[in-house]
Amino acid sequence: MSVTAAKGFTAAGIAAGIKENGNPDLALVVNTGPRRAAAGVFTSNRVKAAPVQWSEQVMKSGQVSAVVLNSGGANACTGPKGFQDTHATAEKVAEVLGRGAIEVAVCSTGLIGLLLPMDKLLPGVETAAAQLSEHGGEKAAIAIKTTDTVHKTSVVTKDGWTVGGMAKGAGMLAPGLATMLVVLTTDADLENEALDKALRAATRTTFDRVDSDGCMSTNDTVLLLASGSAEVTPEYEEFAEAVRQVCDDLGQQLIRDAEGASKDIKVEVINAATEDDAVEVGRSIARNNLLKCAIHGEDPNWGRVLSAIGTTSAAFEPDRLNVAINGVWVCKNGGVGEDREKVDMRYREVHIVADLAAGSETATIWTNDLTADYVHENSAYSS
Amino acid sequence: MSVTAAKGFTAAGIAAGIKENGNPDLALVVNTGPRRAAAGVFTSNRVKAAPVQWSEQVMKSGQVSAVVLNSGGANACTGPKGFQDTHATAEKVAEVLGRGAIEVAVCSTGLIGLLLPMDKLLPGVETAAAQLSEHGGEKAAIAIKTTDTVHKTSVVTKDGWTVGGMAKGAGMLAPGLATMLVVLTTDADLENEALDKALRAATRTTFDRVDSDGCMSTNDTVLLLASGSAEVTPEYEEFAEAVRQVCDDLGQQLIRDAEGASKDIKVEVINAATEDDAVEVGRSIARNNLLKCAIHGEDPNWGRVLSAIGTTSAAFEPDRLNVAINGVWVCKNGGVGEDREKVDMRYREVHIVADLAAGSETATIWTNDLTADYVHENSAYSS
Repeated sequence: MSVTAAKGFTAAGIAAGIKENGNPDLALVVNTGPRRAAAGVFTSNRVKAAPVQWSEQVMKSGQVSAVVLNSGGANACTGPKGFQDTHATAEKVAEVLGRGAIEVAVCSTGLIGLLLPMDKLLPGVETAAAQLSEHGGEKAAIAIKTTDTVHKTSVVTKDGWTVGGMAKGAGMLAPGLATMLVVLTTDADLENEALDKALRAATRTTFDRVDSDGCMSTNDTVLLLASGSAEVTPEYEEFAEAVRQVCDDLGQQLIRDAEGASKDIKVEVINAATEDDAVEVGRSIARNNLLKCAIHGEDPNWGRVLSAIGTTSAAFEPDRLNVAINGVWVCKNGGVGEDREKVDMRYREVHIVADLAAGSETATIWTNDLTADYVHENSAYSS
Repeated sequence: MSVTAAKGFTAAGIAAGIKENGNPDLALVVNTGPRRAAAGVFTSNRVKAAPVQWSEQVMKSGQVSAVVLNSGGANACTGPKGFQDTHATAEKVAEVLGRGAIEVAVCSTGLIGLLLPMDKLLPGVETAAAQLSEHGGEKAAIAIKTTDTVHKTSVVTKDGWTVGGMAKGAGMLAPGLATMLVVLTTDADLENEALDKALRAATRTTFDRVDSDGCMSTNDTVLLLASGSAEVTPEYEEFAEAVRQVCDDLGQQLIRDAEGASKDIKVEVINAATEDDAVEVGRSIARNNLLKCAIHGEDPNWGRVLSAIGTTSAAFEPDRLNVAINGVWVCKNGGVGEDREKVDMRYREVHIVADLAAGSETATIWTNDLTADYVHENSAYSS
């Protein structure tokens, strides 16, 4: 399934030796269809990895034939040599496939500030190309994992066409367009403009509202490739909804696999004056370390929700705020509400509703709790 | 020492029974001098605790006779009843001291969203008043502790006059004017205007640049009271510098006692285009959970510094950024610099220098590492 669920795509995932532990670390996705349309969104971090800088140029070329992805190194903050390495990787893929390098997008993930072992990566491209298959999507999804404990794929099949994809991401997850590496494919026959519009609409309300640890990556990339192999051009709205569903599903999988997390937290802001207000308040709550610790301890500590709301510029009156945790309105009109002892927090999913009583707009941000395991995983040397 | 180092002040600290464990929880500071000048800065959190709302009114009255402080409950998000309780506390202090309630500032700290046990607090005021002493500063500093492991006091003595003070704070520490409860006293003979100017100048570069966990409190208060008892009016600049020194010292003590911390991290941003840029970048670095975990693991992971800088709107070019950790320039021109193995991170203080190469302004933000102990301390029920 994954990126090969849609017709007109082959993929492979192999161990090139970039990771010292011998795990799969190189993936290749190739568009074999009659059309090579594509769209992409990238990190808004101003410190951009070499592969992001390269792939932004690829998008401007108007078509994408292949995507090569490596784990085991982000190739970020690596200077001119890092960019040369990305370029050489695209050239190698182009050579092996008989396409142009400017049609090859490159994605990298792993530690920042280290050059990639090109003596292993380039031969790996040849190995991967030799294993390209219409059933290779799963292996590709496995090869892009870093601290992910599971690989993430999603597929939506409609009447004669399909949208599928894969994602990696478990830490350094925060909005700023995309928040990880994602490759989506479709066999629908669509122009770049429709792909771009559908992708931006989908990421705005899915990946952009996933905020595991507030740390924005230098390598975030979401690509959508269309092969046209289904020979069907769906209605835009139907296609956009399918893309949104796949993005939403992958975003949920990212949160469920977040580093060290024991709780998935749905922060729903309601009755905001504007959607921007709702997103700002949702993010502020989702990034509050004290609240995230409290949720980890199954403590419905709504005071930390209010103190997080109070740091925002959203429209609200403090004495009209209401907060529910798992259905219990523990805060009413800015003060003590229902008995906090009624809140059942035994389950993995925790639902926080923040009612701003200032309008009718809403937004939902997903985050997770802050745990000792997160600290442990991210304090290990060169993690 | 503490708030009674300056002449013209008495203080007391007692256990009123607000804390269930019987620890000291009520402090009283009284100005007995010929002058009752004062200045205050308060949290910029829009969700303000009842004592903050009250004390802001007290400041407008133009003089402060006494400050009553309790730990064991923040009296935040407690609605009209919470405000009535604060008012009643000030009334009780006024009655016992024979002063006006509008001259009595009130500070509270502890859990948000619980009403204070007034049946214990009001008798406690009488007990504290009976124990007021020119040597009571230490006991007052002890009575305002919550999760603080040590009480914090500081004194600067100049030619014939003194500035002293006490502080509490260990979590929910982030800028927004002040970041905790602080009472400073001086026996210098100064008007409110000079006190206000000196206090705002001092907090802007001390408490406002302490950022333990990015979480802004609802109760932050810094008060400066002047008794005039020294019968000396110092030069403004000399007085302002003394206030700054006391604030800086107390701020350092807060960071050193931050919940669960094992490292104190000095984030120094240099060569910024503006001071605002330097502060924005410093805060972004200081709030990056991944970096804070890396420092905990003694990992000089400078890539996380660059990814944090990249999220800001400060003026810089990514390929001109330099980063030093404990004196080793591990990142030069946005790429790999000196060998990271050279960085010695065994000691408690870690010094990060971020060179934006964009101007000549500078700012220093203090933070600490993120540890499993922080998670543990803040995930316990009703912490």
